[in-house]
Amino acid sequence: MIGLFDSGIGGLTVVRALLKAAPQADFVYLGDTARTPYGNKTQETVERYAIEDAQYVIKHGAQLVIVACNTASALALPKLQEAFPQIPFIGVVKPAAKEAVAITKRSVGVIGTRATVNSEIYDKVIHKYGPHLKVMQQACPLFVPLVEEGMLNDQLTKLIARRYLTPLRQANVESLILGCTHYPLLKPLIQRFMGKKVKVIDSANVVVKQAMEEYPQLFAAKDSPKQTIAFTDTSPLSDRIASKWLGRPVTAERAEL
Amino acid sequence: MIGLFDSGIGGLTVVRALLKAAPQADFVYLGDTARTPYGNKTQETVERYAIEDAQYVIKHGAQLVIVACNTASALALPKLQEAFPQIPFIGVVKPAAKEAVAITKRSVGVIGTRATVNSEIYDKVIHKYGPHLKVMQQACPLFVPLVEEGMLNDQLTKLIARRYLTPLRQANVESLILGCTHYPLLKPLIQRFMGKKVKVIDSANVVVKQAMEEYPQLFAAKDSPKQTIAFTDTSPLSDRIASKWLGRPVTAERAEL
Repeated sequence: MIGLFDSGIGGLTVVRALLKAAPQADFVYLGDTARTPYGNKTQETVERYAIEDAQYVIKHGAQLVIVACNTASALALPKLQEAFPQIPFIGVVKPAAKEAVAITKRSVGVIGTRATVNSEIYDKVIHKYGPHLKVMQQACPLFVPLVEEGMLNDQLTKLIARRYLTPLRQANVESLILGCTHYPLLKPLIQRFMGKKVKVIDSANVVVKQAMEEYPQLFAAKDSPKQTIAFTDTSPLSDRIASKWLGRPVTAERAEL
Repeated sequence: MIGLFDSGIGGLTVVRALLKAAPQADFVYLGDTARTPYGNKTQETVERYAIEDAQYVIKHGAQLVIVACNTASALALPKLQEAFPQIPFIGVVKPAAKEAVAITKRSVGVIGTRATVNSEIYDKVIHKYGPHLKVMQQACPLFVPLVEEGMLNDQLTKLIARRYLTPLRQANVESLILGCTHYPLLKPLIQRFMGKKVKVIDSANVVVKQAMEEYPQLFAAKDSPKQTIAFTDTSPLSDRIASKWLGRPVTAERAEL
């Protein structure tokens, strides 16, 4: 059983990548919609929430936990591993950073929440594997509410994207990490603005790829796979969004932490 | 001692109004920054959080609780009064609705979070006191993140305001209730877009006015007033914003609920 968690619905982009790569695998996803978002909260609070989230998916049988949230990956991974030493954790930061190093010659752009950008985690991890690379970071705090409003192709979203992305385009970054699990939904708009030559790295895809390489047995196809989606706050609206993102009907369970 | 609470920092606009009207009064304010925002969460979750918030300020001596949050006022007031029958609660909805009825002849506009607008509480309360009035509501979900980003006079904020407010302007509303405690910070921009003739009602001012009329003894000036600001998640950034909004240095206490 694979466990995944996120601050809310954003991590469903990782579930989407998982379902594409291994449609018959067992998994349990927890979205902490009752306390979302994490991106502008402090490290101490994000650590506490991440541990409670991990506990939930582990209690429900997870043998591996994918931290499908950049903010929690950036701020809470050491504490998570300390709290549950017997369980492997894979965050979204390292796989995306390694992918960037593999495909970039000179300069990488990173976009994320304020908390992720302030943590400078992408900078550190990219420099560990590619010390020669220039890393340029940009916080995009309005992207999450725009995605949650479903304004994926709105004129206002384009203007806001132009504001955030212009410095990265002017700096001629060759690749751009989408350092927040909400952002893959804005990928077409971001790719159009940045231009075809810029390689946009979707952390949802790369984290699933890395997890499958390291723990292939957990991704085995089951005849009747157990696939659970749970939220700490459930509503018809969150079910509707989840169903739309995953392209299948979703009725989330209510999780009590 | 006056208690006030909000989902986060927005309710500090009510503290600002309180400090203007009664600078030497005792008060305790709680901002639930660890779980902010409430505006897109369900009634059940908002009720649970509101009861925990009220408990905190009552434990710290509050004899009256001002619910300085439109979402909690719209969704949780009956449950709050039931949970603490000995304490009077004043929400921001009724004072603003009554003010609108007092100054409007035909039509009132209301802007707020999705949760507040979906609750239709303003519609109900305005029609109770002014059954002849036409009420036009508009959810403005991006205003809270824009305020929290400090983009109070940004070109993008103007464009987003135009999107939300155009239907209200075209309908020629005579007054407009700012149905979210974040919105007073956008009042100049909103007033400019709506035009001078539209009376913009700031719920922060009217709730303080009503509370002072009903419980004048609690607003008495003290020689050394106890004035506490507490957040469930504290950071240098939230202290900086609070200090800016209140025009005095603020170091918030960390509240454990």
